[in-house]
Amino acid sequence: MPPTTGLGVLRHEDPRLLERLEESAGVTEGGATSAEQFEKWFSARCAAQVHEVTPIPFAEMRSWSFAEGTGNLVHDSGRFFSVAGLNVEVGEGPVRTWSQPIILQREIGVLGIAVREINGVLHFLMQAKAEPGNPNGVQLSPTVQATKSNYTGVHQGRKVPYLEHFVGVEPRQVLADVLQSEHGSWFYRKRNRNMLVEVGQEVEAGEDFCWLTLGQLHEQLAIDHRVNMDARTVLSCLPGIGTGGLTDRGNGLHTASELLNWITNSQATYDLDTTLVGLTDLPGWRRSEWTISHERDLFFSVNAVEVVANSREVTGWTQPLIQPHGVGVTALLVKRIGGVPHALLHARVEPGYLDTIELAPTIQGTPENHEYVRGAVHEQLRDFPGLCERGRVLFDTELSEEGGRFYHSRSRYVIVEVGPDHPEEEPPGFRWMTLPQITWLLQHRHYLNVQARTLIAALRTCVA
Amino acid sequence: MPPTTGLGVLRHEDPRLLERLEESAGVTEGGATSAEQFEKWFSARCAAQVHEVTPIPFAEMRSWSFAEGTGNLVHDSGRFFSVAGLNVEVGEGPVRTWSQPIILQREIGVLGIAVREINGVLHFLMQAKAEPGNPNGVQLSPTVQATKSNYTGVHQGRKVPYLEHFVGVEPRQVLADVLQSEHGSWFYRKRNRNMLVEVGQEVEAGEDFCWLTLGQLHEQLAIDHRVNMDARTVLSCLPGIGTGGLTDRGNGLHTASELLNWITNSQATYDLDTTLVGLTDLPGWRRSEWTISHERDLFFSVNAVEVVANSREVTGWTQPLIQPHGVGVTALLVKRIGGVPHALLHARVEPGYLDTIELAPTIQGTPENHEYVRGAVHEQLRDFPGLCERGRVLFDTELSEEGGRFYHSRSRYVIVEVGPDHPEEEPPGFRWMTLPQITWLLQHRHYLNVQARTLIAALRTCVA
Repeated sequence: MPPTTGLGVLRHEDPRLLERLEESAGVTEGGATSAEQFEKWFSARCAAQVHEVTPIPFAEMRSWSFAEGTGNLVHDSGRFFSVAGLNVEVGEGPVRTWSQPIILQREIGVLGIAVREINGVLHFLMQAKAEPGNPNGVQLSPTVQATKSNYTGVHQGRKVPYLEHFVGVEPRQVLADVLQSEHGSWFYRKRNRNMLVEVGQEVEAGEDFCWLTLGQLHEQLAIDHRVNMDARTVLSCLPGIGTGGLTDRGNGLHTASELLNWITNSQATYDLDTTLVGLTDLPGWRRSEWTISHERDLFFSVNAVEVVANSREVTGWTQPLIQPHGVGVTALLVKRIGGVPHALLHARVEPGYLDTIELAPTIQGTPENHEYVRGAVHEQLRDFPGLCERGRVLFDTELSEEGGRFYHSRSRYVIVEVGPDHPEEEPPGFRWMTLPQITWLLQHRHYLNVQARTLIAALRTCVA
Repeated sequence: MPPTTGLGVLRHEDPRLLERLEESAGVTEGGATSAEQFEKWFSARCAAQVHEVTPIPFAEMRSWSFAEGTGNLVHDSGRFFSVAGLNVEVGEGPVRTWSQPIILQREIGVLGIAVREINGVLHFLMQAKAEPGNPNGVQLSPTVQATKSNYTGVHQGRKVPYLEHFVGVEPRQVLADVLQSEHGSWFYRKRNRNMLVEVGQEVEAGEDFCWLTLGQLHEQLAIDHRVNMDARTVLSCLPGIGTGGLTDRGNGLHTASELLNWITNSQATYDLDTTLVGLTDLPGWRRSEWTISHERDLFFSVNAVEVVANSREVTGWTQPLIQPHGVGVTALLVKRIGGVPHALLHARVEPGYLDTIELAPTIQGTPENHEYVRGAVHEQLRDFPGLCERGRVLFDTELSEEGGRFYHSRSRYVIVEVGPDHPEEEPPGFRWMTLPQITWLLQHRHYLNVQARTLIAALRTCVA
């Protein structure tokens, strides 16, 4: 019988996936890796991957230079990334027009976590990986972090382990695959694929890799600077976990259609105009032999570093890194409405988004910068300690952003559950959404920003 | 009791919406407007809105000119739209690099249809609207076609009727609101809001407006050049109609997760690089006093017209229009697989998309152009008549694109159901998808291109 005539050719989503994920989230001991084994493995990887990172003047970088004419910071090969200038005009906020350096990285990379059943429980293959910008060297990273040059084989380099499970893979094993943006204040229209792929029993953990249950990963997430940004964003795209068995779109203070209406209206209403320009003579910024920095030493600076590694494959290199000034505060307010937890998300304009706005945490800012740029965020940051005292702090961990581009970029990620007396009323540009609604949006590209995605991964560890 | 403590504050989607839409689709007679009333009204509107459109040399345009330096065609006010140049590099296809004129229109407009229950049946408020580029003058248009300058009140002009039902509206009445792209070969990153809003009994049809059931609209869709592009794209975003009661994501030859994996992989794999440049000295294009055209007279030209209207409000104006050469063929192959209708969609690269690819009809091209640009589309167009003979033609109507920008832009829109002997195997870059899956994607921005959206609106009229 030809396959076109039988209902049997039609495919169905794995009806047990949510259940299997919930099961894995419930296992913190008794999985493939004991807590003791994990600690031993992680310490050994930390010792095996030491990066000595030293600031150097730009002139001492190898293969990196300021391009003639534009003054952009570029690699001789034209690969990796570059730093250019951006002129920005926005329709609202305390500052409506500014210029800034911005990272250009056109290639779409793969951030992928392999998932495998071990003794009937789903395990996630995590990598111990040092990056020069990490404040603490090694962090737990996805199975694969690869650029497109890696995965299309354009450049013949060292093979990326496990890459074959993510690219050119049988799509029936893919649990999630979605393009998501990264920091819109520092990257211009950068995005990566966020993938989770279920692999077979034959896939084993190599030296730098370790199988962890979702429950174990949730424990790691609460440790300062332990789980890297790439792993956090991939975890946020997990379908359905922590949604309490509700359907895709759930029911909340707003329906899914009402939220889409609000998001589309925000996209259409906010004004944002960006123009890429050269890095030379960028208004408000100055370049010395060692750094490109803001004239008031705010926001961030662009620096050069020399990296010496103790690895066998690569002994050392130089590269630029972005160094944010101050420790960021990234906080999500959660409130039970009608018994259902809702998170308060903000339609936030950032110059590097492909679209104008993405949904951001309730609070996102760096106090030092907002002392200077007074406005709504300044007030939120000022009131934040009181909010934490009155509410219940569900999550409070200092985490870092991608250490391959950012030097000691630290943010305090906080989830605060506020009580019944906290107003349900939404400030302009904010909406309460349920976790199932947020999970539904995370199937699709560019709804939530990278900071909100970290907090959603964290929220799933603490909201039943 | 404060509202935060009761389940009663949680909102639910209208559970009867699909049923109400199906009911309206079943009504072609006995609604608010009889067939006779409609024809009488439509003829009267055609007589009342006559546009005399005459080609003029560029120099005779009022308030439009070629900007110094760039040579771009711009309006003195900086409003409306402009025509610039674009350099394009793509990673595959018969032509990998070219230059072309392209329309810039940054503002996001509203395309909105008001929906209202009349005698218990949903009716759609359609507008009779003439556009200078329409081959036949007046077409059925959405209730509202407004630019952002209109709807934010930045420019004090004539009030757009019914606009207040779409902007600043209570979101609970919104059936759909999604940003969708327009022609990626002619527009650079243009998109509009596609909205359907349910209004109350107090909303009445003005002189240029008429209430039609969905069944009546479906009849109109099959008439050559009767329903305009804007109305077709809004209708395509209707939630759920024609999905046969299946859930959001349905089941098909591929699951929803598998389709998202394929779409994301296509976004990440195809290469596209575009650079906006001035219109002056665009390689392969020449400018005369009357026209900007390709050196082989292919693709399209940019012309100027004088419009004389018999309306009381506006008596006449001049403007540029894009004139495509040849009649396009836009065709969707449909095949029952496991008893469920599937449409074959193509991951198509167009230079003006915000993202790299959007899902396009199975076939999309203009035979005259593809005689010159030989490749896969040329072969598809050559084989198309045979395909129609062997299959069952469900829809075959000549329709025009947006008449405010395009002069006599005509395409034959065809849906062919192929038989069991047609291969189920998908060529590279193509996927069979069910109507529920497509409808699910249409809730979100930029998955389907404007040609595919017209064919999906049409498919819902002929697939049970």
